[in-house]
Amino acid sequence: MKFQDATIQEIDRVMEEAWKAFLIYRETTPKRRAALMRAIARGLESAGDGLIHTAMRETHLPETRLRNERARTMFQLTSYADACEAGDWLEVRIDTAMNEKAEPDVRKLQVALGPVVVFGASNFPFAYSTAGGDTASALAAGCPVVVKAHPAHAETSEMVAQVIAGAVAEAGLPKGVFGHVHGAGFETGKALVTHTHTRAVGFTGSFGGGKALFDWAAQRKMPIPVFAEMGSINPVFLLPGKLKTSARELATQLAGSVTLGTGQFCTNPGLILGIEGADLDLFIEELGVAIEKTAPGTMLHPGIAKAYADKRSQALHQANVNTVAVAAAQPQENQGVPTIASATAEAFFNNPVLHQEVFGPYSLVIQCKNMGELEKAARHLEGQLTASLMATDADLSEHASLVAAARDICGRLILNGVPTGVRVALAMQHGGPFPATTDSRFGAVGADGIKRWVRPLCYQGWTDAALPEALKNSNPLGIWRTINNQLTRDAIS
Amino acid sequence: MKFQDATIQEIDRVMEEAWKAFLIYRETTPKRRAALMRAIARGLESAGDGLIHTAMRETHLPETRLRNERARTMFQLTSYADACEAGDWLEVRIDTAMNEKAEPDVRKLQVALGPVVVFGASNFPFAYSTAGGDTASALAAGCPVVVKAHPAHAETSEMVAQVIAGAVAEAGLPKGVFGHVHGAGFETGKALVTHTHTRAVGFTGSFGGGKALFDWAAQRKMPIPVFAEMGSINPVFLLPGKLKTSARELATQLAGSVTLGTGQFCTNPGLILGIEGADLDLFIEELGVAIEKTAPGTMLHPGIAKAYADKRSQALHQANVNTVAVAAAQPQENQGVPTIASATAEAFFNNPVLHQEVFGPYSLVIQCKNMGELEKAARHLEGQLTASLMATDADLSEHASLVAAARDICGRLILNGVPTGVRVALAMQHGGPFPATTDSRFGAVGADGIKRWVRPLCYQGWTDAALPEALKNSNPLGIWRTINNQLTRDAIS
Repeated sequence: MKFQDATIQEIDRVMEEAWKAFLIYRETTPKRRAALMRAIARGLESAGDGLIHTAMRETHLPETRLRNERARTMFQLTSYADACEAGDWLEVRIDTAMNEKAEPDVRKLQVALGPVVVFGASNFPFAYSTAGGDTASALAAGCPVVVKAHPAHAETSEMVAQVIAGAVAEAGLPKGVFGHVHGAGFETGKALVTHTHTRAVGFTGSFGGGKALFDWAAQRKMPIPVFAEMGSINPVFLLPGKLKTSARELATQLAGSVTLGTGQFCTNPGLILGIEGADLDLFIEELGVAIEKTAPGTMLHPGIAKAYADKRSQALHQANVNTVAVAAAQPQENQGVPTIASATAEAFFNNPVLHQEVFGPYSLVIQCKNMGELEKAARHLEGQLTASLMATDADLSEHASLVAAARDICGRLILNGVPTGVRVALAMQHGGPFPATTDSRFGAVGADGIKRWVRPLCYQGWTDAALPEALKNSNPLGIWRTINNQLTRDAIS
Repeated sequence: MKFQDATIQEIDRVMEEAWKAFLIYRETTPKRRAALMRAIARGLESAGDGLIHTAMRETHLPETRLRNERARTMFQLTSYADACEAGDWLEVRIDTAMNEKAEPDVRKLQVALGPVVVFGASNFPFAYSTAGGDTASALAAGCPVVVKAHPAHAETSEMVAQVIAGAVAEAGLPKGVFGHVHGAGFETGKALVTHTHTRAVGFTGSFGGGKALFDWAAQRKMPIPVFAEMGSINPVFLLPGKLKTSARELATQLAGSVTLGTGQFCTNPGLILGIEGADLDLFIEELGVAIEKTAPGTMLHPGIAKAYADKRSQALHQANVNTVAVAAAQPQENQGVPTIASATAEAFFNNPVLHQEVFGPYSLVIQCKNMGELEKAARHLEGQLTASLMATDADLSEHASLVAAARDICGRLILNGVPTGVRVALAMQHGGPFPATTDSRFGAVGADGIKRWVRPLCYQGWTDAALPEALKNSNPLGIWRTINNQLTRDAIS
């Protein structure tokens, strides 16, 4: 099925509807928003096999993966619904009047920013797309959402959009709470980001795409925030003590992570760093053996397969880069070939091409001469979603400055684990310093993602009757509030 | 005393020192940071009359005001020190491992962004300058601070900088925890904001200045956040019920607020809106009488006095603007003359000059024909720090859509109070939608200001011994943490 790019007039109509809906939707209780989100989750399930089969056809992702991803998306919706109702994200602070000092009563809560535009990811047709984490968290915050369908799975997106629209109608909410437009060119995206009614943007994709949105948003007459999750090569540091005892296990673990989902994860470990010697040689050898045995997989769409082939080829042809291993099986059309390369730290320092993401089942092993080079490599890297340390307790205490260097470049610091697999939980941080994202202060996974779509508003000197529910003396929402600097669920007497 | 603008080499040296200090200072405990902040507060007091007299000479502000402002600055430092130790700003979230689902242990806290550059305000030589709210909150977060002294009170800034440097040395912390440079031209500011080691910027001042910093920061290779608090005209809406019963009281209250501190507050009520008729006529008359009796005051410096004279004159000469009242006393050199003007809503809608801030003891009364025009005026306004409603309970319920319109444009919504006077408390929001600030999601007063200088970092799969104190099972800091979605101060057993 082919969808037409939305015209400027259509975008204007959708954003107008979103704005009108905002004035109503933001007044709904957390309970009602949570009910909407749970209804969307049920709708995704009710969409049944048809939804899975459409996604399979469009993305070439395997059925099990897509069923799991749908379940994850439903869990996101329901767990953020729980968080919406629990109300911690409202960050209610109350300082009661101090009449002797003539200090007024002040009460603060978080309020919705306004319509949010979401650009879904090619590699997650459910979890980071139409009804994904950005949409779920924005709905929790009280913001209408306008999704630009990803052209690589536009039909899946259309089906999910219908589920959401159905839930919105069922809930008796205005249609404009959720809008959906198509657009394969950048003009659609630019029109959405620069529209006067747009108040924030969520994006998952390439650096080029995310940075363009960021720039457009910053250049508006009224700048708006853009939360773009862009590329990441997710360095894995093999510390000497751990490498000595566990080279084989690490090789197996990393081979699995590099090739999981044909390497099409933003958390794919694209760079592995260790100190040269027999232990690293053994690791590389075992990693190569495992990679050779891994079958090529069909990539999301021909464009991504071609980009992988090109970037892989470019990387392998750089000076002082050796091809360690390539999957033995012959690839079919649009398949990505699992590949491991290696290079010296010196080559890595001198060649920015080796710092670039090769989106697919590829990883580069950097052979450092010593800890100094390993640490220098860590400090050389740009911002990342994750950094992993394969380390014993002794490694950690002996090499504290490497640990600090790794910590500085990432949003999630992993010990003896692989970066693929992002737990949906409040304590997760899926984000990181630029250029991994445009704003290191927020994350895209877990209920703290709601914070991206709100701003604080203070009520000064109000009478109890006229205050919003969250701020009333009796605490009718039963939420945690900080009253005169003390966290409590108590009412104010 | 005349200070030289810092050279590029000096700025580079100061930022290098700040970066080196960051690597050490961020590892300090909240307790140690709080001790530093309290020492700075004591140092401000110890600086005694000399500091007050220098500020008086440079700013022409009266002695009592400056003594009160120093006390406020000390309170900011000590209350943010308390908040730093209480640790709510660390926003610790822990989700323990779920082995049956192969979900890893994840633990998140907020970590310092890096060196913060602070541009102080001309109108608050203590509270929003060198040792002001931006500096205090950044030190609490674990960020070194580099202050660019405001040229209008450079000597005061130098004295305060010496107090801070002394406290840093006394605490055994690296010198680079606090840097101080001078610069009257925009080149110094640009060099600071675009320096590779700068990680965030705090600013209080004009729209032109703040927006320039924002643009430079957004155009960096690695964009950084800028928290600029810029202009605001702080509209006051006189609702019909309240105006009927209290026209005289409102006039007295507003006359005091408009002329407080010779009108040199970012929260000065520069726009007052009501519905034409006998009640509004009485209000305007009484306001005029009070203004005529108010003596002109010496402004902060000749540049501000001249800008006030020019903008006031420009505003009074617009078509359909009437001068209601001017202070009767003859002004001396560099004094600002208290002035009230009035205009119809129609004139206001059609003339953007009337939306501009006239920084000084000036306010414009807008006479609307009806509630529709009053609400239209509210929706016509750009983002503001505050909006005030003078209203009875009946007014609030009858005119809910005006209340919503006022709420949408501000960070602080005041009922039956004036916007001048900003309580230093956690529940305060001193910020607002663009162009009042560059980022409506954060504020500059109260301990939540600490959040501007941090980002979340997640530790996945770590052993307890290697975790930061805030994340350890035993909760050695004794702080509130969200563990498996429950807020608690308990340890993890």
